Amino acid sequence: MPTSRYAESESLLARARQVVPGGVYGHQSPRMVVGGAYPYFFARGDGCRVWDVDGNEYIDLMCSYGPIVLGHRHPAVEAAVRRQLDAGDCFNAPSRLWVELAETLVRITPFADWAAFAKNGSDVCTWAVAVAREHTGRRKVVRAAGAYHGAHAWCTPAPAGVTAEDTAHVLSFPYNDVGALRQVVEAHRGDVAAIMLSPFRHDAFHDQELPAEGFLPAVRALCDAEGIVLILDDVRAGFRLALGGSGERFGVRPDLACYAKALANGHPLSACVGRAALKDAAERVYFTGSYFTSAVPMAAALACLAELEASDAIAHMEAVGLRLQRGLEQQAASLGLAITYSGPPAIPFMSFVDDVKFARSRAFAAACATGGVYLTPYHNWFLSAAHGERDIDQILAVTESAFAAARRLAA
Amino acid sequence: MPTSRYAESESLLARARQVVPGGVYGHQSPRMVVGGAYPYFFARGDGCRVWDVDGNEYIDLMCSYGPIVLGHRHPAVEAAVRRQLDAGDCFNAPSRLWVELAETLVRITPFADWAAFAKNGSDVCTWAVAVAREHTGRRKVVRAAGAYHGAHAWCTPAPAGVTAEDTAHVLSFPYNDVGALRQVVEAHRGDVAAIMLSPFRHDAFHDQELPAEGFLPAVRALCDAEGIVLILDDVRAGFRLALGGSGERFGVRPDLACYAKALANGHPLSACVGRAALKDAAERVYFTGSYFTSAVPMAAALACLAELEASDAIAHMEAVGLRLQRGLEQQAASLGLAITYSGPPAIPFMSFVDDVKFARSRAFAAACATGGVYLTPYHNWFLSAAHGERDIDQILAVTESAFAAARRLAA
Repeated sequence: MPTSRYAESESLLARARQVVPGGVYGHQSPRMVVGGAYPYFFARGDGCRVWDVDGNEYIDLMCSYGPIVLGHRHPAVEAAVRRQLDAGDCFNAPSRLWVELAETLVRITPFADWAAFAKNGSDVCTWAVAVAREHTGRRKVVRAAGAYHGAHAWCTPAPAGVTAEDTAHVLSFPYNDVGALRQVVEAHRGDVAAIMLSPFRHDAFHDQELPAEGFLPAVRALCDAEGIVLILDDVRAGFRLALGGSGERFGVRPDLACYAKALANGHPLSACVGRAALKDAAERVYFTGSYFTSAVPMAAALACLAELEASDAIAHMEAVGLRLQRGLEQQAASLGLAITYSGPPAIPFMSFVDDVKFARSRAFAAACATGGVYLTPYHNWFLSAAHGERDIDQILAVTESAFAAARRLAA
Repeated sequence: MPTSRYAESESLLARARQVVPGGVYGHQSPRMVVGGAYPYFFARGDGCRVWDVDGNEYIDLMCSYGPIVLGHRHPAVEAAVRRQLDAGDCFNAPSRLWVELAETLVRITPFADWAAFAKNGSDVCTWAVAVAREHTGRRKVVRAAGAYHGAHAWCTPAPAGVTAEDTAHVLSFPYNDVGALRQVVEAHRGDVAAIMLSPFRHDAFHDQELPAEGFLPAVRALCDAEGIVLILDDVRAGFRLALGGSGERFGVRPDLACYAKALANGHPLSACVGRAALKDAAERVYFTGSYFTSAVPMAAALACLAELEASDAIAHMEAVGLRLQRGLEQQAASLGLAITYSGPPAIPFMSFVDDVKFARSRAFAAACATGGVYLTPYHNWFLSAAHGERDIDQILAVTESAFAAARRLAA
């Protein structure tokens, strides 16, 4: 019975619903899988494994929705965190790590001359748009239809609490459609401050799309021709595909790039890096928060980036991601199940073809959870440097029966 | 020479200016005091003391602009942090501390039935406005002119990067002026979603103002009569004046209250608490961030609130704050210097009467820094539970000569 396996999670969720709107909100909302088939609260993590509050162990394919890039409680990161905690975290002004981290990001990022820090991906994406507005003296921001660039009102996926003015200057085009993008820019010529793109299409509830041949160079050329600031929202993918940002992987140099998630292996930090030409505007756009200068997450980020740079972590995530992809594709084929496996191997998404309301995906995810593999049916997954080949093989032993469960659903 | 006392700070600031817009931005910008008279980077903290990167020691009267309410590296908070770090911080979903912290906030807050968590004060203030809009179906938010409710575009103190639409639904009235507030509400009757107030006026660059007799009850009555949501922005003052929020101290029950800063003694966390009537709207307004559910800051908050509840910390901060106030007022009087000392004793502000461009305040702050007391001339100060009577007396030994420096300036 699911109720016994997840009894403590269910009990905590019932308490949470009393004192928190929705119990758990946002992308970690418990609406992800059929009720009772999933844990809602976690107790601990280690490497690529997590344990829920009922003591069930999982191989973690979500990596906290991205932040855990080296594995939970990576020794070098946690040692740096504890060293900094011995001195303190939140002071009246930054620590020297503020400077060292900015210098590191500038050094490893091909196009960047400066960095600024905050706490959330939303913080830096919204601020980057304001910097582009200040730099250009224009108002409009163009993004791909359906793309998520944070929870702020201008791009939230839910309309509740949003006014018409919040989205008045937000324009959209279908991802990968250069012609449509050109039309949008043409229609607002002289008023487009920024084009904001994720490095590939990774919208929840959709198969992922890599940039089409020629798409990113065309966007870059359009920005150059029209004086538009190109912002790369690398919050989700950053540091998993290339040390210098995902623009390095896909062959484009943005003017601004936004990071969070993998930057500090789960410690709360986000960053925006940019070209020299935008530094004056960046200095003018007000940006502050109570914990923006805190030292501990910066110690974590320096240790995380050092490990990514010194190790083969990024190549390793691609390799184990490919092993997972091949295994899943073979299993699905052998059962006669049509799936779509999309995106870079380190940040993959799998869907079932003609899957009405994600019913098969939900059954698959629920069976994976029962078997000790944690993934979600609507949102892309994440590999980490802590996932070894044997972990992938253990995942595949679980997905074999999860595919069978998904297949039964259709029968 | 200042250059020798702050040589390392100056050197780091020069490096920072190369790779960070402005070197350090926001309210921690190095524009606070005359150049060379102040440290820009900190190395460690302990109790009510901090050390800058040059090894200079200070009694800290800023408490990291509020977060440090129990003192730097409070043993109970740091022990809770390390215990949680042993298990992990950022998971795919919350830990049980999510529930326990929400239950604790609901228990200690007289009006609150639920809580929601984020990372910045800006996060929760902006979200609270959206919740009020969703609840009322209205658009306008009214705030006191000049009040700071976060760095987001609708209320940023700097116009750079802001569009006209960002502030289209933001209305202002002069603080403490009920008649003016009524006129604003009257002029937009049926479209005012929220009135947002800090518990007292604590704008930077201004003397503080406590709520006038009858002001808060009149605001509460106006909100009740007009169906307006009353939001208390308790980000700066929360948990320093009363355990149940500053509304408890000043005798008003808001519908929503926003916390950050002192909630977790410097660990990155913010919260919004609210009445049951607003819970459905709160559930609908999208709210998420990569680290919103992280467990370590929640462990810190639970330990911090437990310490505030079990100890006399809040009364103690008032008492040492009063000792500081009396000492400073006596010193100023004995030197014939006219000062204004404003706000609650635990969150005071001091200015010099007829001080053109804060020249005396800046000289006073610079002399304090040289003498080993850290405070800023434009922004209110903060006492903590770690400030003892002997620390206050040590501060007063330094301010004696700092007042003399300020007096010389006028001669």
